[in-house]
Amino acid sequence: MNTNVETTNAISHYMTTVGQCARAASRIIGRAETRVKDAALLAIAEALEAATEALLAANRLDMDAGQTNGLEPALLDRLELTPKGIKTMAQGLREIAAQTDPVGEITDLKYRPSGIQVGRMRVPLGVIGIIYESRPNVTADAAALCLKSGNAAILRGGSEALHSNQAIAACIQHGLAAAGLPADAVQVIETADRAAVGELIRMAEYVDVIVPRGGKSLIERISREARVPVIKHLDGVCHVYIDDRADMDKAVTVAYNAKTQRYGTCNTMETLLVADGIAERVLPVLGERYRAAGVELRGCSKTRDLLPEVKIATEEDWYAEYLAPILAIRVVKDMDEAMDHIATYGSAHTDAIITEDYSRARRFLREVDSSSVMVNASTRFADGGEYGLGAEVGISTDKLHARGPVGVEGLTTQKFVVLGDGHIRQ
Amino acid sequence: MNTNVETTNAISHYMTTVGQCARAASRIIGRAETRVKDAALLAIAEALEAATEALLAANRLDMDAGQTNGLEPALLDRLELTPKGIKTMAQGLREIAAQTDPVGEITDLKYRPSGIQVGRMRVPLGVIGIIYESRPNVTADAAALCLKSGNAAILRGGSEALHSNQAIAACIQHGLAAAGLPADAVQVIETADRAAVGELIRMAEYVDVIVPRGGKSLIERISREARVPVIKHLDGVCHVYIDDRADMDKAVTVAYNAKTQRYGTCNTMETLLVADGIAERVLPVLGERYRAAGVELRGCSKTRDLLPEVKIATEEDWYAEYLAPILAIRVVKDMDEAMDHIATYGSAHTDAIITEDYSRARRFLREVDSSSVMVNASTRFADGGEYGLGAEVGISTDKLHARGPVGVEGLTTQKFVVLGDGHIRQ
Repeated sequence: MNTNVETTNAISHYMTTVGQCARAASRIIGRAETRVKDAALLAIAEALEAATEALLAANRLDMDAGQTNGLEPALLDRLELTPKGIKTMAQGLREIAAQTDPVGEITDLKYRPSGIQVGRMRVPLGVIGIIYESRPNVTADAAALCLKSGNAAILRGGSEALHSNQAIAACIQHGLAAAGLPADAVQVIETADRAAVGELIRMAEYVDVIVPRGGKSLIERISREARVPVIKHLDGVCHVYIDDRADMDKAVTVAYNAKTQRYGTCNTMETLLVADGIAERVLPVLGERYRAAGVELRGCSKTRDLLPEVKIATEEDWYAEYLAPILAIRVVKDMDEAMDHIATYGSAHTDAIITEDYSRARRFLREVDSSSVMVNASTRFADGGEYGLGAEVGISTDKLHARGPVGVEGLTTQKFVVLGDGHIRQ
Repeated sequence: MNTNVETTNAISHYMTTVGQCARAASRIIGRAETRVKDAALLAIAEALEAATEALLAANRLDMDAGQTNGLEPALLDRLELTPKGIKTMAQGLREIAAQTDPVGEITDLKYRPSGIQVGRMRVPLGVIGIIYESRPNVTADAAALCLKSGNAAILRGGSEALHSNQAIAACIQHGLAAAGLPADAVQVIETADRAAVGELIRMAEYVDVIVPRGGKSLIERISREARVPVIKHLDGVCHVYIDDRADMDKAVTVAYNAKTQRYGTCNTMETLLVADGIAERVLPVLGERYRAAGVELRGCSKTRDLLPEVKIATEEDWYAEYLAPILAIRVVKDMDEAMDHIATYGSAHTDAIITEDYSRARRFLREVDSSSVMVNASTRFADGGEYGLGAEVGISTDKLHARGPVGVEGLTTQKFVVLGDGHIRQ
């Protein structure tokens, strides 16, 4: 018991120091010039490539431990670093360096009747805590996004990737030093103790926002216990609605791609809604293609009239984020019924309509309350890279602050700037 | 005990119904056309003016009860409705109606290399809960801002203003009905029971954001207990820094206005920082003016060398939000020391520099991390009306989402819209 208290105190003390150092570094990185931040990013990229051997050796230790501890193959897959993966990390850093610096941009600067000029300046959030699973490449990506946006970063990766993350952290430190930026601008938590996360999400005086990346239960726990604001990513129960005025080819192509291009991603379609007037034509064709791809179908009774071998969908199926080759299908009367279904069962992540009808497309875009709303495009496009944000730190399913893919701009905020000439309030 | 449980259950049931009705109404108000929302705002304005007698009578009941219960004069002052006050409320509604509708605005719509077009559409947050003190005019202002921004509102005013708020609510209902909008778009909580607030801030499934307006302890309690995101307004420890390259006249005029134009507002200067090189010239002049206005001064030792009758400032004074005719004064070496002081003791609300030096003005604007940063202007300008936002629902001292005065736009968010032509992810 005594030991536990001592350990807890030690972790608490360690994290407080991390927080204080991050806060101090955030003031320096927040005002750093664009060319200095970009120089650091390029130096980190170079250091990562130069350290390929060391990174692979460190990763080998994590992989061996993971295999010994019986880590699932999917997790081992995410944990593994390859020479190609290291090149991709370095390339990602170079792309972020090539982006426009959002910090300091002033918009809407206008004269007011009082004579003052009022505008908004984009500024860093301050200190960002990122909690993620055992994917070492996130360490480099997240550090780069925070750096570019002028924020100090505290990174807490999965304990299974500890050696890999430390090796990447060494490269980051090298790059920061080469550009003359403070080492504390990016801190990688060095303990596997879970208590460190508990401290991190409660240090509201040192941390401005927490971005958790991981499973739903982790994110729910962090949201519940955090005293720091959280940008969170929960479910992706994404829909494609095939309208009766859809082009058949586009409907089949998009609905097939949205489900099968990748199964485990949050922007994969989980429920297909089909207008009654087109179901008879489109469902047999789609059913055949899904079957060929090995997708299990679960449908409403009307769906089963058209595709008799389909299992019956239960109420739970409409809420389900399968992340697997399973698809729920429902025949609806019209677009209004489709939008009601999306509002009731959806997770406000990404929803698409397939239609050639101008007025319906316009209504769907406005009325569906999701972070991404699409017309005649696959839900799989909901991604920071595809949207042109550069890398993404995550996809927000929150409404406040950042909605959808969060890139460099999502890690900034805006303050008001006022220019006067001795103006006073009357 | 049994009764308490029953009461608690009744309140919980009542608030759940309020929440469900708000959620349902938010879908209708969210897609309402601009002219319909504006028609409702104008109809409410007309109803308020037409109901002047009834409003004054309802307010009389609250005022009498307030006097009987020994409410403080300042609170009674806020509680009171006058014919002029009712005209001002109506005028505020007409100004909000005249503003541009932010909902549905699409920005940055660009073609991506994949062929899709990606942009952002401004959309309502959904359901907004506003908790405020006994100022009946907030009922009309808050309802109008929520309505214009396409949100459903749940309003919980101070129990001392219950009759006044119900009378204003009747006018709001009249206006909503006249425009054909659902009555539940604006709900005024009808119970004085504090448990209603406890329910409101926890109904994350029905409420998207809470805006508390009131004393610091109320806001801190709500932030601590809320399960719904809170846009909060804590301290305003605002600074004016007089640089040694300041114009003397501007320095005296602005520093005097920032303290004395109103004492009880959050954007009033609480600490004056003066560069060593100009203190000898500016402090005696300012000291005389503050004394004439009855402002109590508390200074550092250098300040007291120049103004001997000034009290010594303690460490607490640098943190203090006096909201009173008291001012802390500190002589600093230069702008860097001033910015360090602001970073250490400030509340990141509003801070100003008085200088004619271009490079220092530029640095101050970028490096001071406050919701409003000013050059040669009074901190008192930090206000939604002065900034051209129309009315404000509050001033946010948070960094995420909205920073500084929150107007109609602060009650909206942005979703991504994607337009394709059968595009799929490769």
